[in-house]
Amino acid sequence: MNIDKITMGVCYYPEHWDKSLWKEDLLRMQENGIEVVRIAEFAWTIFEPKEGNFNFDFFDSFLEVAKEVNMKVIMGTPTATPPVWLTEKYPEVLNSTKEGVLYRHGCRRHYNYNSKIYQELSSRIVEKMSARYGNHECIIGWQIDNELNCELNEFYSESDTKAFRSFLKDKYESLDALNQAWGTVFWNQTYSDWEEIFVPRKVVSDSTNPHQVLDYTRFISDSACRFAKMQSNILRKNIGENIFVTTNGMFGNLDNHRMTKESLDVYMYDSYPNFAFAMEEDPKSSRNLNDRKWSRNLSEVRSISPIFGIMEQQSGANGWNSRMEAPAPKPGQLTLWTMQSIAHGADFISYFRWRTCTKGTEIYWHGILDYSNRDNRRLQEVNEVSKIFESIKELAGAEYKASFGVIKDYDNIWDAQLDEWHKRIEKVSQKGIFQGAQLTHTPMDYVYLNKNTDLEQLKKYPVLFYPHPTIITEDRAQLLKDYVYEGGKLVVGCRSGYKDITGQCVMEKAPGLLRNMTGTDVVDYTFVGPGDEESYVDWKGTQVKASVFNDILEPIEESRSLGTYVNNYYKGKSGLIEKEYGKGKTYYFGGTFSRETTEVFLDKLDISTPYKDIIELPQMCELGVREKNGIKYIFVLNFDNAEQEIYIKSELYNMYTKKAEIGKIKLTAFETKVYKIKR
Amino acid sequence: MNIDKITMGVCYYPEHWDKSLWKEDLLRMQENGIEVVRIAEFAWTIFEPKEGNFNFDFFDSFLEVAKEVNMKVIMGTPTATPPVWLTEKYPEVLNSTKEGVLYRHGCRRHYNYNSKIYQELSSRIVEKMSARYGNHECIIGWQIDNELNCELNEFYSESDTKAFRSFLKDKYESLDALNQAWGTVFWNQTYSDWEEIFVPRKVVSDSTNPHQVLDYTRFISDSACRFAKMQSNILRKNIGENIFVTTNGMFGNLDNHRMTKESLDVYMYDSYPNFAFAMEEDPKSSRNLNDRKWSRNLSEVRSISPIFGIMEQQSGANGWNSRMEAPAPKPGQLTLWTMQSIAHGADFISYFRWRTCTKGTEIYWHGILDYSNRDNRRLQEVNEVSKIFESIKELAGAEYKASFGVIKDYDNIWDAQLDEWHKRIEKVSQKGIFQGAQLTHTPMDYVYLNKNTDLEQLKKYPVLFYPHPTIITEDRAQLLKDYVYEGGKLVVGCRSGYKDITGQCVMEKAPGLLRNMTGTDVVDYTFVGPGDEESYVDWKGTQVKASVFNDILEPIEESRSLGTYVNNYYKGKSGLIEKEYGKGKTYYFGGTFSRETTEVFLDKLDISTPYKDIIELPQMCELGVREKNGIKYIFVLNFDNAEQEIYIKSELYNMYTKKAEIGKIKLTAFETKVYKIKR
Amino acid sequence: MNIDKITMGVCYYPEHWDKSLWKEDLLRMQENGIEVVRIAEFAWTIFEPKEGNFNFDFFDSFLEVAKEVNMKVIMGTPTATPPVWLTEKYPEVLNSTKEGVLYRHGCRRHYNYNSKIYQELSSRIVEKMSARYGNHECIIGWQIDNELNCELNEFYSESDTKAFRSFLKDKYESLDALNQAWGTVFWNQTYSDWEEIFVPRKVVSDSTNPHQVLDYTRFISDSACRFAKMQSNILRKNIGENIFVTTNGMFGNLDNHRMTKESLDVYMYDSYPNFAFAMEEDPKSSRNLNDRKWSRNLSEVRSISPIFGIMEQQSGANGWNSRMEAPAPKPGQLTLWTMQSIAHGADFISYFRWRTCTKGTEIYWHGILDYSNRDNRRLQEVNEVSKIFESIKELAGAEYKASFGVIKDYDNIWDAQLDEWHKRIEKVSQKGIFQGAQLTHTPMDYVYLNKNTDLEQLKKYPVLFYPHPTIITEDRAQLLKDYVYEGGKLVVGCRSGYKDITGQCVMEKAPGLLRNMTGTDVVDYTFVGPGDEESYVDWKGTQVKASVFNDILEPIEESRSLGTYVNNYYKGKSGLIEKEYGKGKTYYFGGTFSRETTEVFLDKLDISTPYKDIIELPQMCELGVREKNGIKYIFVLNFDNAEQEIYIKSELYNMYTKKAEIGKIKLTAFETKVYKIKR
Repeated sequence: MNIDKITMGVCYYPEHWDKSLWKEDLLRMQENGIEVVRIAEFAWTIFEPKEGNFNFDFFDSFLEVAKEVNMKVIMGTPTATPPVWLTEKYPEVLNSTKEGVLYRHGCRRHYNYNSKIYQELSSRIVEKMSARYGNHECIIGWQIDNELNCELNEFYSESDTKAFRSFLKDKYESLDALNQAWGTVFWNQTYSDWEEIFVPRKVVSDSTNPHQVLDYTRFISDSACRFAKMQSNILRKNIGENIFVTTNGMFGNLDNHRMTKESLDVYMYDSYPNFAFAMEEDPKSSRNLNDRKWSRNLSEVRSISPIFGIMEQQSGANGWNSRMEAPAPKPGQLTLWTMQSIAHGADFISYFRWRTCTKGTEIYWHGILDYSNRDNRRLQEVNEVSKIFESIKELAGAEYKASFGVIKDYDNIWDAQLDEWHKRIEKVSQKGIFQGAQLTHTPMDYVYLNKNTDLEQLKKYPVLFYPHPTIITEDRAQLLKDYVYEGGKLVVGCRSGYKDITGQCVMEKAPGLLRNMTGTDVVDYTFVGPGDEESYVDWKGTQVKASVFNDILEPIEESRSLGTYVNNYYKGKSGLIEKEYGKGKTYYFGGTFSRETTEVFLDKLDISTPYKDIIELPQMCELGVREKNGIKYIFVLNFDNAEQEIYIKSELYNMYTKKAEIGKIKLTAFETKVYKIKR
Repeated sequence: MNIDKITMGVCYYPEHWDKSLWKEDLLRMQENGIEVVRIAEFAWTIFEPKEGNFNFDFFDSFLEVAKEVNMKVIMGTPTATPPVWLTEKYPEVLNSTKEGVLYRHGCRRHYNYNSKIYQELSSRIVEKMSARYGNHECIIGWQIDNELNCELNEFYSESDTKAFRSFLKDKYESLDALNQAWGTVFWNQTYSDWEEIFVPRKVVSDSTNPHQVLDYTRFISDSACRFAKMQSNILRKNIGENIFVTTNGMFGNLDNHRMTKESLDVYMYDSYPNFAFAMEEDPKSSRNLNDRKWSRNLSEVRSISPIFGIMEQQSGANGWNSRMEAPAPKPGQLTLWTMQSIAHGADFISYFRWRTCTKGTEIYWHGILDYSNRDNRRLQEVNEVSKIFESIKELAGAEYKASFGVIKDYDNIWDAQLDEWHKRIEKVSQKGIFQGAQLTHTPMDYVYLNKNTDLEQLKKYPVLFYPHPTIITEDRAQLLKDYVYEGGKLVVGCRSGYKDITGQCVMEKAPGLLRNMTGTDVVDYTFVGPGDEESYVDWKGTQVKASVFNDILEPIEESRSLGTYVNNYYKGKSGLIEKEYGKGKTYYFGGTFSRETTEVFLDKLDISTPYKDIIELPQMCELGVREKNGIKYIFVLNFDNAEQEIYIKSELYNMYTKKAEIGKIKLTAFETKVYKIKR
Repeated sequence: MNIDKITMGVCYYPEHWDKSLWKEDLLRMQENGIEVVRIAEFAWTIFEPKEGNFNFDFFDSFLEVAKEVNMKVIMGTPTATPPVWLTEKYPEVLNSTKEGVLYRHGCRRHYNYNSKIYQELSSRIVEKMSARYGNHECIIGWQIDNELNCELNEFYSESDTKAFRSFLKDKYESLDALNQAWGTVFWNQTYSDWEEIFVPRKVVSDSTNPHQVLDYTRFISDSACRFAKMQSNILRKNIGENIFVTTNGMFGNLDNHRMTKESLDVYMYDSYPNFAFAMEEDPKSSRNLNDRKWSRNLSEVRSISPIFGIMEQQSGANGWNSRMEAPAPKPGQLTLWTMQSIAHGADFISYFRWRTCTKGTEIYWHGILDYSNRDNRRLQEVNEVSKIFESIKELAGAEYKASFGVIKDYDNIWDAQLDEWHKRIEKVSQKGIFQGAQLTHTPMDYVYLNKNTDLEQLKKYPVLFYPHPTIITEDRAQLLKDYVYEGGKLVVGCRSGYKDITGQCVMEKAPGLLRNMTGTDVVDYTFVGPGDEESYVDWKGTQVKASVFNDILEPIEESRSLGTYVNNYYKGKSGLIEKEYGKGKTYYFGGTFSRETTEVFLDKLDISTPYKDIIELPQMCELGVREKNGIKYIFVLNFDNAEQEIYIKSELYNMYTKKAEIGKIKLTAFETKVYKIKR
């Protein structure tokens, strides 16, 4: 992304062929600070109204207008919505339910990635579009498809079964190896022919072989990555060097890190925090942090692209005609959510969408303007945001500064989807760690372990949580060991290390590959049942919550127990083990990381609230920090629909007002601030 | 319906070929006041045991007995339950799930209206039956099919797709027009061939194009209407002039007004208020008004047929073997529900059914008699009802007298089914207005806007509520305008006028076609979110609840704001606008009409509790009024399972006792009264 | 079962071909008291890797090891999990959903019983295995299939439809008879050809003809019984005389009594009481009795086989990867549940499983050992249980001593599945009677009425409850009458006798065939609705709860009313009728038997707490009694996770400690005791 300042864009749908209307719209955007429009991502039929008949008149016209007013353009490839002539002629391009019912024309994203004919027709339209517009002077970037894996991220078509077999042949080479990896001796599932293998089908109790499902999930991700790469290869061939390739996410069953590395220059996120206030939510309960949960998503995005874009930033109420009803954002929330994105690393913010659509499924997915096109409070707010952008433009490219990291990897993420034991603990800890960090104002990063992850990346963090590395590999175990040896502190929770990469349990004493490294022996383990009291570990007088699951521990190999359980049948047994190794330490905790537990760990490991000497914030405000050239930019985001007070202990420079501030400062409802500290 | 007094009937199933048993049954009915039996509506196989082999012996015999004892008969056409030989030989006659699974023999109403073969075979059986019995002296009426659109009111067979294409070709003539109307440019849904169009199929997220769904719903209604008309045409050809044609309802996705106008002499309703006490209900909570909700249904029926019949009036507990379990009606409830029907305009009451069925799915859908045929309390109660009928017989033909009307139209009803934003507000207001009217004893009518509705119909009402005319047309807007000009008061709520007849949002300032007429500009709008406080508008000191959704208003064109919001971000903005026009006024209210809100409007518009000078009733009693030849008949219905007291302020004539009454009068649990007032 | 002492086994999965590992495992089992292993029940592909290629090397090797160490073996036939080559080549062997979607390879139990090809291939593998191993000296028994009707107990394949037609032709001979039995005149369902009949298919509202469904359920049971008998016939031909044939259950839609009589020497149960503590349960509420509910299942098992085995006794936490998560059993629970089985009549206890599976769906269905094979607390507990077995070995063969019986029959069980009115009352009474018996320490038996049941079996019980004999036959009515005449006391509840064997309601005054015998006339009946107060019958001053449903009664034929309703519209009407007949009495109670109601009946009929003069127990402890040669063995089971105190009034001999005990005795959490009393 060749962007050198915080930049504003908008998603635009030039539905009617009306050049004067387009010009009027583009000029009005520019008056309000918008410099980029995204177009064309659902326009296949406009380009190819009949199979093989291509027509570029419509977008030629539009780009003429864009050129005339000097508007920058991001162009989408239209493969998310195949034309009806395509799906009716070639129904094999459709995705299907597990029971074999095809998803038909009428919504979006109903195709499958693995149909040969869909790959051919998609390649051709991308080739045609990029050949024509690849060097158009207005176009600064291309978006591949739209929201890969959104709506559906499971695929059950016949094309998928064929591709799954290829994927497995490449991976295992022999059926024996596959039978081993899938543990097919259990329940007599042994395969004797590749043709006997399918993507998951309808089975009894909806319980397909779990190792098959794990590989199937990897296959879905692989399919999406291949589909993106197919398009990216075509684009890169045809477009100019300074033009970026991106796509927008972020959806499940997809290794976004791999896809971004393979196919994109930058990753973009579609940020809709207003879901937190949707009609079926309970936003009066603050425990879920409402729209602050999006800070967690943005941290995930940052792990993919340290500096990223927001392709769709919420600008109005959301809702399809059939679901997802939500109130309008309140005055100030559009600004708040924009600044939330920037605080977390976004340098490009494109609002969804210019004008609210008057037809189809998304009539309630509001844009900046209403159906009538009238000036309104949201356009006014966008205009004011553009002034903020001007005031903070220097921070483009600044990196988010985290005080600790949380390790994730796709194997464990996907295993936790199919394994209810794994899911229960993962859910609690992922939420708990995020909440603990948020509420103590301790910035955190996610760090993904994959084949590209190296020690240097880990060493940026004095402390790493890897809450439940159920699946662990030798490489990853070694990397973690090196990290600790070099002085890092590694915290893991219950259920670590008992599975291998196939998702099978290892026939070793738990925590398997993490056993020596953590000096921990798991002698027994159990869910904390619904009939049991809440579980706690006494850590030198502090009662640490150990919810959901408990590993009962014993120290081995020079490690020592730091705390013991205070209830259930394992009262008095160890629940926390510390081991020193090289310059660092490991902590094996027998439970999950709830918010309270996380707060204890942050405190005991001395990384909690790193800016407490500079600024004090109430819980309702988020603190975010970006840094560039030794300058720290401190974001304060008031997520409360009420006034909040912060306390600045040493003078800070307010970038909006260009004035120094100290002492008690009031923030109005939803107000944001960006302060500068020089080193 | 050629009925000149309140008349009692019963549904009868002469299962065993036993003339002496039939005679015994018919005489016993007559002893208890029953003068009419309905028969034959599921008897196809008895008439046509094999394809093309017709046999009338069974019903010939039955009608001989009927003639002998002088029992009147309503005969049903048997098309609701095709024989198994038919559905197995011609599976294309079956309805199907959206996923393409056929609904098979084993329940009822599994056919589709659009199969040519089903239309042919249905026409033939109706032709044969009506040719034979069309002039039988016992038969006073014919019922077409049974409960059209009951069980299923969505149809997904191949026959339906073919018919849907014809329907659309007739409607739009060109694909361009259809693409415009369905907004197919959104998400690349443009059709290039009529063969690409289907009834809704399985799509991603179950979210088919909403404009398609709206037309599809119109098509379902059209299909049912055509099916009824096909039968009606045959019947009218073969039956005597004084014999009425009817059918029984009332079910969704069906324009009952059109069907009745096209095909029926009178519309009949199947009234089962005991559903309110079913095992899955919460009848201890009085807010839903329990069985009084049926007064709302009966008001709907009255809008179709001002004087109507009840083809099936509940006489015992309901329930299939598989669902809908309910307790027995308590002593007095059979009478109460019968009088509820009459109060609302029914002159014919046919109980369902004579004897409880001993076999099949409806063994718990109790009749008057139990399985054993013994005398019981319900037969005794029927007998007593027949004496009431005698005492009030003069009021046959009297019209229900409403103090205000609520406008409805099928476009908005069906749009509210597919549009969750529309549904949420419609549900609250429809319920709230009914409840407000009930509890203030203010009789109300429903008034349907369709091509037959004229100004005279509207002028009967000093006040009309049209709670959420989301879809509005020029014709309807003009009619409303004329109504106001002539002195009417029109009340509309939030979300008015923002859609056109296709269900697309208009690119106009809201409320679109109602803007000038109501003098209202909707400058912003939002759901009242689950995190927000309940919303209120201050109307000169009265806090009016404005739940669920709020339009933020500004007065234009000589209108004036009557009240402002008291909370949320639009506090102080207008929530209620009044405009005078001609002799009348419009009121645009920014919220929905909850019960409390309705009560305020009824009061402020001076139509609340119109009989307060004559009679005072507690909330648990319903007041209903019918009028004929200047005489008002006042129904008092005690829906409470406890004694209630009313207060008569000026002497009334009790029709049951034939005595004048004044002062405090006690009603026992479930007791009813009919009083007469001469003008 | 040729077992002369309480014996311990284990389920073993010799996955890897490793004789030294096997030997080590078997010796380790023997060291801990295990004398029997069950093997091979899912091993089809190991025996027949390709169609028709048989290979016995693997299990030959295993049995050599077993012989070497003198381990006894139960061998399973592998038909629960067909090989994938089989299901892919012959998809007609698969079960299907009602909508016609086949259940595919990937889980287990996906076959149907009625496929000819599956019957052939199953017969062949059973023939081959039993021919080879039928006289192997280690093998003491054979298990047919595994958990018949588990996972799925409804079958909708084409093979099932064909077999269903045969079943019906055998049963009814003519379509006329079938049409009569199914009441097809209702809703025009009359069949004119056998080919028109199917197993239930997709129908409107999912409400198939109830009489068809009742026959269909009988057909499913018949199919499973035939499948077991097919295998049993082959086994008996090939195996030695002293070798027993069994299978393990207990699952729905299966007449286990018939199957056991036809095909088995002994019935075995799979006992997993830990389900009571699963993550989705609410075990803090004691009203459901948690794991004591398994005593109810064990009583059912006892009615099939007075002395039985436990093929799978829980030894660790349960759970599939996809569902059924549960905490680990606490120390003591393994012992408690083992003794619960023995108390109820088990003489053989086989734990599931030796080592926890590391792969596939059941990685959380824990065995005694964990994945690592390490010694653990559960193995230690098994070892201690083996010492208990030694101390109580003499009681093998002792019979459970019940103080009263509860009559059941499959017709009513299956009718209550399809009939929601029947289901609601059955559920309450079955639970209530069990709870009342448990909490008053009154041992009870289930007694099944079938063609083999005779008067002698009934006469063992001074009192029999038959809570809701909705369906009753002349034979059964006569048997009950004889029982009462001979001095028995028979208690029936509401809704008795109103259906015949087809599930049709009888056109007689209720309770039909039980009318004269109980001297009861049911003049009216109703659910106790959700808007009604809880219902009570005053029985001489005791308020007896009469929940859910009420029959309103009148005494006839020299019977007398013992109590009247105290509320609802039938206040003052009789709710309880007693009639003397011969030396006995009948009681017709108008309501259901909740726990409280049961306790009143047990008390009034003088059978409550039969051991109160010997031992007093708190509610948290279960009392069980087995008897042999005039010696009573009293089991005390503390189901509480806390100390409990019992009080022994006259000296008892503690079999574990071999010491006499009297007075107050404390039981630790989950502790069990077995006392001996000589007559």
